[in-house]
Amino acid sequence: MKKTAVGPMTLLYPKPALLIGADVEGKPNFMAVAWGGIANQSPPMLSVAIRRKRFTYKGIEENRTFSVNIPSESQVTETDYCGLVSGTKNDKAAVCSFTVFYGKLKTAPLIEQCPVNLECSLVKVVDLKTHALCIGEIEEVHVSDDCLTDGKPDVEKVRPLIYSSGAELAYYGLGARLATGFDIGKKLL
Amino acid sequence: MKKTAVGPMTLLYPKPALLIGADVEGKPNFMAVAWGGIANQSPPMLSVAIRRKRFTYKGIEENRTFSVNIPSESQVTETDYCGLVSGTKNDKAAVCSFTVFYGKLKTAPLIEQCPVNLECSLVKVVDLKTHALCIGEIEEVHVSDDCLTDGKPDVEKVRPLIYSSGAELAYYGLGARLATGFDIGKKLL
Repeated sequence: MKKTAVGPMTLLYPKPALLIGADVEGKPNFMAVAWGGIANQSPPMLSVAIRRKRFTYKGIEENRTFSVNIPSESQVTETDYCGLVSGTKNDKAAVCSFTVFYGKLKTAPLIEQCPVNLECSLVKVVDLKTHALCIGEIEEVHVSDDCLTDGKPDVEKVRPLIYSSGAELAYYGLGARLATGFDIGKKLL
Repeated sequence: MKKTAVGPMTLLYPKPALLIGADVEGKPNFMAVAWGGIANQSPPMLSVAIRRKRFTYKGIEENRTFSVNIPSESQVTETDYCGLVSGTKNDKAAVCSFTVFYGKLKTAPLIEQCPVNLECSLVKVVDLKTHALCIGEIEEVHVSDDCLTDGKPDVEKVRPLIYSSGAELAYYGLGARLATGFDIGKKLL
């Protein structure tokens, strides 16, 4: 297959669509972030890339805690909205009718309507050129009871959003189950 | 909806299924990684979490370059295999019949069969507890011509794998297109 060099770009498939939460000036605020991933196994850590001037970032610096809320397909409008406007001028939680709760960390606001909520304590900020890469330790995970199977989070019930860039910016749902991990590859052993 | 605290874990939906490439001892090697994300906008950077003892990591340290190859649904068996075995004892490129090519960076091996290939130069290694978080600048992106639409990478043609943990380890395909990004949220303005 012939290849074309399309130039450097922030391309990765799939990207998550996450709602990052922080208390800013005493109120919960949420921003949409597609740039994040798991960073360490034990203790569990993740990274999210945020511009330093963002309102949410102010709260992360202040409290050294943040949340990662994983929205479901039914929350695509709210998720996109949280990436369009700033918390400096909008009460996004009110506009989206989010029910906010707090867990172990007390200052990491969690969205009840999102099926999965991660509470994170800030471990380190890696200063990159345009973004601050915030590395957080995942201190607790909350899952809506209707998204559990045998007590464990079930992606087919969570129905997460898949964010995509390239030819266009778009949200997709989860597709068909293809294979079992750490298993299908044994065919080549 | 009632929530259950399931304890700290490396949970994020969706996670990518990536094949990280490096030249080790003069030969191309590939490992499967689900722990990565975009880290910076300009210049474009990404992060991938790798255990320091991995054979691939040796090559990344030696050459300070690596590749990120995004497999398609048809490569699920090869992708999983590259996560099951080590390059110390197996020529994974040969077993998987990968056609390896090199681009701008000369020491970041790229897999022709994968629809998207990112060439990365190592910017920084963040030493976390069990993993080294490798931050790379995306210096070039190669896309198979049959996955381009108007010269841009098209996720619906790429058909990336979505990796999932929780109730089980499994690979999924891309689902239905739900909405346009930076657009659907305008309903709430």
